[in-house]
Amino acid sequence: MNANNTYVIGVDFGTLSGRAVVVRVGDGAEVGTAVHEYTHRVIEERLPGSEIRLGPDWALQSPQDWLDVLRTAVPEAVAAAGIDPAQVVGLGTDFTACTVLPTTSDGTPLCFQTPERPHAWPKLWKHHAAQAHADRINELAARRGESWLPRYGGKISSEWEFAKGLQLLEEDPETYARTERWVEAADWIIWQLTGVETRNVCTAGYKGIFQDGSYPSEDFLAALNPDFSGFVGKLGQELSPLGGLAGRLTAQAAEWTKLPEGIAIAVGNVDAHVTSAAADAVRPGQMVAIMGTSTCHVMPSDQLAEVPGMCGVVRDGIVPGLWGYEAGQSGVGDIFAWFVDNAVPASYARLAEERGQSVHDYLTELAAAQQVGQHGLVALDWHNGNRSVLVDHDLSGVIVGQTLATRPEDVYRALIEATAFGARVIVETFEASGVPVAEFVVAGGLLKNRFLMQVYADVLRRPLSIIDSEQGPALGSAIHAAVAAGAYDDIEQAAAAMGARQENAYAPDAERADAYDRLYAEYRTLHDYFGDGRMLHKLRAIRNEASA
Amino acid sequence: MNANNTYVIGVDFGTLSGRAVVVRVGDGAEVGTAVHEYTHRVIEERLPGSEIRLGPDWALQSPQDWLDVLRTAVPEAVAAAGIDPAQVVGLGTDFTACTVLPTTSDGTPLCFQTPERPHAWPKLWKHHAAQAHADRINELAARRGESWLPRYGGKISSEWEFAKGLQLLEEDPETYARTERWVEAADWIIWQLTGVETRNVCTAGYKGIFQDGSYPSEDFLAALNPDFSGFVGKLGQELSPLGGLAGRLTAQAAEWTKLPEGIAIAVGNVDAHVTSAAADAVRPGQMVAIMGTSTCHVMPSDQLAEVPGMCGVVRDGIVPGLWGYEAGQSGVGDIFAWFVDNAVPASYARLAEERGQSVHDYLTELAAAQQVGQHGLVALDWHNGNRSVLVDHDLSGVIVGQTLATRPEDVYRALIEATAFGARVIVETFEASGVPVAEFVVAGGLLKNRFLMQVYADVLRRPLSIIDSEQGPALGSAIHAAVAAGAYDDIEQAAAAMGARQENAYAPDAERADAYDRLYAEYRTLHDYFGDGRMLHKLRAIRNEASA
Repeated sequence: MNANNTYVIGVDFGTLSGRAVVVRVGDGAEVGTAVHEYTHRVIEERLPGSEIRLGPDWALQSPQDWLDVLRTAVPEAVAAAGIDPAQVVGLGTDFTACTVLPTTSDGTPLCFQTPERPHAWPKLWKHHAAQAHADRINELAARRGESWLPRYGGKISSEWEFAKGLQLLEEDPETYARTERWVEAADWIIWQLTGVETRNVCTAGYKGIFQDGSYPSEDFLAALNPDFSGFVGKLGQELSPLGGLAGRLTAQAAEWTKLPEGIAIAVGNVDAHVTSAAADAVRPGQMVAIMGTSTCHVMPSDQLAEVPGMCGVVRDGIVPGLWGYEAGQSGVGDIFAWFVDNAVPASYARLAEERGQSVHDYLTELAAAQQVGQHGLVALDWHNGNRSVLVDHDLSGVIVGQTLATRPEDVYRALIEATAFGARVIVETFEASGVPVAEFVVAGGLLKNRFLMQVYADVLRRPLSIIDSEQGPALGSAIHAAVAAGAYDDIEQAAAAMGARQENAYAPDAERADAYDRLYAEYRTLHDYFGDGRMLHKLRAIRNEASA
Repeated sequence: MNANNTYVIGVDFGTLSGRAVVVRVGDGAEVGTAVHEYTHRVIEERLPGSEIRLGPDWALQSPQDWLDVLRTAVPEAVAAAGIDPAQVVGLGTDFTACTVLPTTSDGTPLCFQTPERPHAWPKLWKHHAAQAHADRINELAARRGESWLPRYGGKISSEWEFAKGLQLLEEDPETYARTERWVEAADWIIWQLTGVETRNVCTAGYKGIFQDGSYPSEDFLAALNPDFSGFVGKLGQELSPLGGLAGRLTAQAAEWTKLPEGIAIAVGNVDAHVTSAAADAVRPGQMVAIMGTSTCHVMPSDQLAEVPGMCGVVRDGIVPGLWGYEAGQSGVGDIFAWFVDNAVPASYARLAEERGQSVHDYLTELAAAQQVGQHGLVALDWHNGNRSVLVDHDLSGVIVGQTLATRPEDVYRALIEATAFGARVIVETFEASGVPVAEFVVAGGLLKNRFLMQVYADVLRRPLSIIDSEQGPALGSAIHAAVAAGAYDDIEQAAAAMGARQENAYAPDAERADAYDRLYAEYRTLHDYFGDGRMLHKLRAIRNEASA
């Protein structure tokens, strides 16, 4: 195989669209890309082509949209690359998670059979209607002292396989009974490409509570609901390693993708975790922060520890042979967008327009001109709850120190700083738990805000590395495909050749870092005071009662 | 004197303009009014007609502007009323306070002699450049246990006569030496009208630290600064009671005002305190809240007590024979204006315009449609510091509970509620100190917001009375003029005949009041947590250092 003349394809299945990227095996050059927007987008109000309404906090997707990505974006990316499809030796994918669907034993989605049943459809990661079920799972697991619970920072999420599965059982037992396989979309798409069912260690570990070789016990599940005891039978029992060969492209999938039948298909993966390979950050202590609407932190480590409030630690969960840690901040870019949409006056919008800037850029420019602390503010970045380290979706935002002289750029800057302080709490919690963070690597859409990056470097008191690709997840999937195709021995080797990272892209300034330390001390004080939820939960309860 | 055929004039000297109102003696009917905008407005940047710059937090006024009110607004109001000037039997005034100026022994303002000296000019109430001097006075008084200190809630303000006088001495000793009289503008204007110097009990008590028959001791003043020991010699020694006759209109002042020489001129007064008469609320326990950019609370009582954080208690300070209490909220309408100017997006401004509403009215309408607590927020109304009960200008605002679903009307409502909670803290503090609040009477510009009024009624759990005049202070001054002219025996009698109050204009709703109790409990918790200033003072110190 001539690595300069052969290509792999990475396909990133996102929340609103799927993206295919054609990547040269030898050096990771991205030579062509194409995007397919999902026809059904996120299904939140009513089922497609029907008047059947969904409940609050529901979020579904259509498998048809995912297949359309294979049919359209993949051949378009190859065409854009100007290569011969015969030069493609492998394909890898990554998916949002936990996005999970019920199928028959041959992988047919139940929503293809009974489209009138909401529970027959794939539940998207941000389907949050199983919170009550997650609460029961957490309560019971804590009471019984289940050994897997600390691996998830003490709480599993309503987004994950067991919570969504229990909701399925209790709200639509008929569909539950017809569910022969309960499968992550990350694995389902591989099934469609290869014709064989595989289950990847990543989603099984982070979303499926698979730890130390097994799922939660039948006994535990029966205690939740006697009819739930057999749930594990619907999951995968043999797990496939990341970077492994899931199978080979079938004739039918070759027809969809216009790729050669029989090329290597990599084991399924998750968008955040696969980004580590794209950033060539798969060694112990390399924490990759994928910063967008929210932030997901992933980090391989040779240390196993119980880190308070982490989302999960999974053996081989990022790369084989290491523990993979995940943590998160549930609101980052979302908070800045909320502020711009709801709290920036017309005069600023007008000035930004006159200057040909976005409001974000204009506010950033004004904020960047300030000295650290000049705004007199400190904020808590909990407008969308707190994932790590408090694991509490019912927290909310706080801002302290406003005067009649406070201007929009002051608050904007304070919110940026608050998310940086939130990141620092996570890093410090890892290190205090005995899991060293050697390098902080940033990927994701917020990379483009250079001021924000500098704030993070100063607040974290460490240099920031940044991913050197615009296509983090898709490039990572392509790297996995190259490993599956045998072009490299392992993910580390492939990532070194094909991934891209700028080290020390932002260096901390000692004086600013000292100034931020003083604000961070106040942030920690607020974090402790409001973090117990006493006041914030009460306000939320009052809100919910008043809204009911 | 035929009360239906005779008139009095009230003149209200405000921050930016002076207003004259012609009022019928018999029933208080307001028959004509006129306003004169001050030519020099507030002098904050540089001295008039000069390049001499003022320091930060300076605020001066020109005595010429006040005289112009007598020359223009008074005759215009008489003309507007369509009455014969000969029907006018008296004139009363009220002023902002503490607005104070240095004069010669005949009352000539020093700024008429040495206009190039900033300290020769009248210092407006909101001149805040004497904070360091106030701090020293407070510290020394607390250390020496001066008996007058508790009468001011434990702290005197930088706005008052002694702080401003000490600043004058220490920053411009020559002008201090030439200052034969240090006189409140409230008394100076009476001097101009009558040709004789009088000092009213109200400003002497609230702003001049005159308690139990004397000013702070020579000994105390010498301990502040040896050269300050004789300061009291520049003040008034014999005080005149409110509603008393200060003197009679001189020939020169008759020429200015086009009023009959020799008519009665009432003793000077303060805008807030004189409003009590206009609202016919001069009996014990009638608390009048003058709600505008800030709120001032004044209340006569037959009880003397040390109420924490009140602005002052003065014998005969509102009406002769009773103790007069004053408290305040340093930011109310100012906070709402700040919010509208700085935190309401273009889309709202556009919608308000389309509907022909102000942004305030539009936000109010949206906020009014909510249930209590539906926004999930609680705020501290300290954007301009806290006057009562914490007496701390260095506090700042806090808002708790924002989510990505929080809308501008939510915050607007939370800010309105926060000021109502602040008012409740004041009322509860009075009552807990043994000074009953029998009735809450609202005057001032915020009266026109009916939703806000209802929030106050619900939060306070008591009916609100409202003043039934658009000209609170000027009407009150006219009532004092009627007493001085002998048309009534005392202020109570004149207020009953000429003042106007709607009792129970807003009744509390029990269900909403209960719901507010829950939010108020959270407000109190925040009040205690942030009220010690630990975090807020630190943020302010960081801000000040960073801005320096």
